[in-house]
Amino acid sequence: MNLLAVGIAAGLAALGASVGIGLIVSKTVEGVSRQPEARGPLMTIMFIGIGVVEAVPIIAIVISFMLMFMF
Amino acid sequence: MNLLAVGIAAGLAALGASVGIGLIVSKTVEGVSRQPEARGPLMTIMFIGIGVVEAVPIIAIVISFMLMFMF
Amino acid sequence: MNLLAVGIAAGLAALGASVGIGLIVSKTVEGVSRQPEARGPLMTIMFIGIGVVEAVPIIAIVISFMLMFMF
Amino acid sequence: MNLLAVGIAAGLAALGASVGIGLIVSKTVEGVSRQPEARGPLMTIMFIGIGVVEAVPIIAIVISFMLMFMF
Amino acid sequence: MNLLAVGIAAGLAALGASVGIGLIVSKTVEGVSRQPEARGPLMTIMFIGIGVVEAVPIIAIVISFMLMFMF
Amino acid sequence: MNLLAVGIAAGLAALGASVGIGLIVSKTVEGVSRQPEARGPLMTIMFIGIGVVEAVPIIAIVISFMLMFMF
Amino acid sequence: MNLLAVGIAAGLAALGASVGIGLIVSKTVEGVSRQPEARGPLMTIMFIGIGVVEAVPIIAIVISFMLMFMF
Amino acid sequence: MNLLAVGIAAGLAALGASVGIGLIVSKTVEGVSRQPEARGPLMTIMFIGIGVVEAVPIIAIVISFMLMFMF
Amino acid sequence: MNLLAVGIAAGLAALGASVGIGLIVSKTVEGVSRQPEARGPLMTIMFIGIGVVEAVPIIAIVISFMLMFMF
Amino acid sequence: MNLLAVGIAAGLAALGASVGIGLIVSKTVEGVSRQPEARGPLMTIMFIGIGVVEAVPIIAIVISFMLMFMF
Amino acid sequence: MNLLAVGIAAGLAALGASVGIGLIVSKTVEGVSRQPEARGPLMTIMFIGIGVVEAVPIIAIVISFMLMFMF
Amino acid sequence: MNLLAVGIAAGLAALGASVGIGLIVSKTVEGVSRQPEARGPLMTIMFIGIGVVEAVPIIAIVISFMLMFMF
Amino acid sequence: MNLLAVGIAAGLAALGASVGIGLIVSKTVEGVSRQPEARGPLMTIMFIGIGVVEAVPIIAIVISFMLMFMF
Amino acid sequence: MNLLAVGIAAGLAALGASVGIGLIVSKTVEGVSRQPEARGPLMTIMFIGIGVVEAVPIIAIVISFMLMFMF
Repeated sequence: MNLLAVGIAAGLAALGASVGIGLIVSKTVEGVSRQPEARGPLMTIMFIGIGVVEAVPIIAIVISFMLMFMF
Repeated sequence: MNLLAVGIAAGLAALGASVGIGLIVSKTVEGVSRQPEARGPLMTIMFIGIGVVEAVPIIAIVISFMLMFMF
Repeated sequence: MNLLAVGIAAGLAALGASVGIGLIVSKTVEGVSRQPEARGPLMTIMFIGIGVVEAVPIIAIVISFMLMFMF
Repeated sequence: MNLLAVGIAAGLAALGASVGIGLIVSKTVEGVSRQPEARGPLMTIMFIGIGVVEAVPIIAIVISFMLMFMF
Repeated sequence: MNLLAVGIAAGLAALGASVGIGLIVSKTVEGVSRQPEARGPLMTIMFIGIGVVEAVPIIAIVISFMLMFMF
Repeated sequence: MNLLAVGIAAGLAALGASVGIGLIVSKTVEGVSRQPEARGPLMTIMFIGIGVVEAVPIIAIVISFMLMFMF
Repeated sequence: MNLLAVGIAAGLAALGASVGIGLIVSKTVEGVSRQPEARGPLMTIMFIGIGVVEAVPIIAIVISFMLMFMF
Repeated sequence: MNLLAVGIAAGLAALGASVGIGLIVSKTVEGVSRQPEARGPLMTIMFIGIGVVEAVPIIAIVISFMLMFMF
Repeated sequence: MNLLAVGIAAGLAALGASVGIGLIVSKTVEGVSRQPEARGPLMTIMFIGIGVVEAVPIIAIVISFMLMFMF
Repeated sequence: MNLLAVGIAAGLAALGASVGIGLIVSKTVEGVSRQPEARGPLMTIMFIGIGVVEAVPIIAIVISFMLMFMF
Repeated sequence: MNLLAVGIAAGLAALGASVGIGLIVSKTVEGVSRQPEARGPLMTIMFIGIGVVEAVPIIAIVISFMLMFMF
Repeated sequence: MNLLAVGIAAGLAALGASVGIGLIVSKTVEGVSRQPEARGPLMTIMFIGIGVVEAVPIIAIVISFMLMFMF
Repeated sequence: MNLLAVGIAAGLAALGASVGIGLIVSKTVEGVSRQPEARGPLMTIMFIGIGVVEAVPIIAIVISFMLMFMF
Repeated sequence: MNLLAVGIAAGLAALGASVGIGLIVSKTVEGVSRQPEARGPLMTIMFIGIGVVEAVPIIAIVISFMLMFMF
């Protein structure tokens, strides 16, 4: 039952991170497609957003590894 | 059964934080794409929002660590 | 089974708080992007909303800590 | 199994309160962004709504505390 | 298993009441933001609605208390 | 397991009644905000709707009480 | 396990009846708000609809009572 | 476990019938509100629809009664 | 556990038939409200649709009866 | 546990067939209401669609009968 | 428990096939209602789509039969 | 419990493939209905899409067969 | 219980891949239907997207095979 | 029960990655279809997004492999 926690944590983290980054990048593509000259600041914001979104899922991934090796 | 709580807390925290930040950053990208000159105040609000959204999931992550080591 | 309650409470609190604040901050970004001169009152309302939204999840987090140490 | 009730009650209360207040405050921000001169009555209604929304979740939080200490 | 009923009843009551009142108050804010002169009758209806929405969840809360002390 | 029925019945009744009345009252607020002179018949219909919506959840609440005391 | 059926039947009946009547009455309020002179036939249809919607949930409520006393 | 089938059948039947009739009657109210002179044929169709929608849930209710007395 | 199948089959059949017929009849009401002179062919199609939608749920109801009496 | 499969298969088949045919017939009603002169080809397509949608649920119904009598 | 797989596979296959074909045929009806002269190629594509959609559910039905007779 | 995996894999594969192909073919019908002269490239893309969508569900079907005969 | 993992992994992979590719190909068909002259770059992007979407589900399929033969 | 974690982690990762990349690539196709001359920067952003979205699911896949071989 304990290793099941590894699967749930890693799976939900992958699901959340993918959907969150998917929202950001798809909106960026839409914004650049409207105003190609604003590519610089939009991509800056996009990279900040990607970095911040990845933070908590990465920690959840770390927790998954710890659960495996502490098992 | 107890370690399962670690997985649920970390997974839901990652899912919530990713979706919440994804909403904020994608709206910011959309706003900057409409008015590139308002980039300053929009990014200020975005950083405040990111900081506030991350607060509770980070505490949930801390709770996950504590559950692991108190186990 | 009891520690499972810690995970559920902390996870749902993180999920709710992230989604709620995400709604408020993304609407604020959208409002400022329409009317940059109304930045003052919008951010005032945003901070009030953030403070109020955080209240109940923070208490749920406190309950999670108490469940852990009373265990 | 009994302490599980504490987690469910606190978690659902936090989820409900966050979503409900998130709806109210985000609509208020949207309304003030349209008509900045109507800031007074909108914020009055917002505070009433926040107070009323918080009522039942706060009682659920109180129930959670009672369940813990009556345990 | 019986105390679990307390958590479910209190949690669902808090969730329902928060969402219901959130709908009413956010629509009131939107209506006042369109027509600030109609603030009187709108707030009258809002208070009636709040009072009626709170009725059944409050009874569910009372049932939760009775379940606890009859236990 | 039997007292769990009390919680489910009371919780679903509170959830249903809150959402149903929330729909009616929010539409009434929207209608009065469009046509303030039609406040009379709209509120009449609103009170009829509230009375009818409350009927079945109130009976479910009564069933919950009976389940408790027949237990 | 048998009394659980009472809770499920009564709860789902209350949920269904509240949502169904909520749809009808909110549409009636919207229709009267558009055409105040058509109040007569709209309210006639509304009462027919309320009567018909209540039919099956009332029978489910009766079934709940019978389950309790046949128990 | 068998009486649980009574609750599920009666509850789902009540939920389905209420939602189905709610859709029909609310559309009829909307249609009469647009064209008050077409009230005759619209209500004719509405009664046919109500009769047909009620058919299968009524049979499910009958099945619930049979399950109870054959028990 | 076997009689539970009766409840599930009858309940899902009632839910599906009600929603399906609700869609058809509500669209017919909407169509007749737009073009009252096309009432003939619309009602012809409606009756065909009702007959066809009822087919599979009626068989599921028959299966429920057979499950009861073969039990 | 085996007869439960009969209920699940028959119930899901009835739910799927009702929703699928409901979509087709409601769109046909809408199309005929827009262009009454195109009634012939639209109803031809509708009958083809009904025949094809019914195919797999009918086989699932046959499977349900076989599960009952092979039991 | 094994025959339960027959019910799940057949039920999900019927649900999927009905919804998928319902989407295709309803769009075809809508397209023919807009342009009656393009009936030929639209129905050609419709038949190809029906044939392809039916493929995997038919195989799932075959699997259900094999599970029954290999049992 | 092992044969249950056959049903889940085959059922989800049929559900996924039907919905995916339903999306593609319905959009193709809509596109051809707008521009009948672009039938060639649209159907080319449609066939590629069908082939690619079918790939993974077919493998899942193969896995289902292997699970059956390795049983 | 272990072979159940094969079914879940293969089924979710087939569901995800079908929905993801369905989104891409249906948007490509829509884009080509608007601008038939941009068929080249759109199909290039479509093939890249198909290749990338298939990557993770294919690995999940491989994991399913490994789970079967390591069993 | 442990190998079940492999299936859940791999399945959710495949589901999340497919949906996330599906969102990005479909928006890119839509953007290129509007402005074919902006194909360069849009595809650059698309590749960055694909790379970032794949990151966490790939790690979840790695975790699945590790769970298998550490078993």
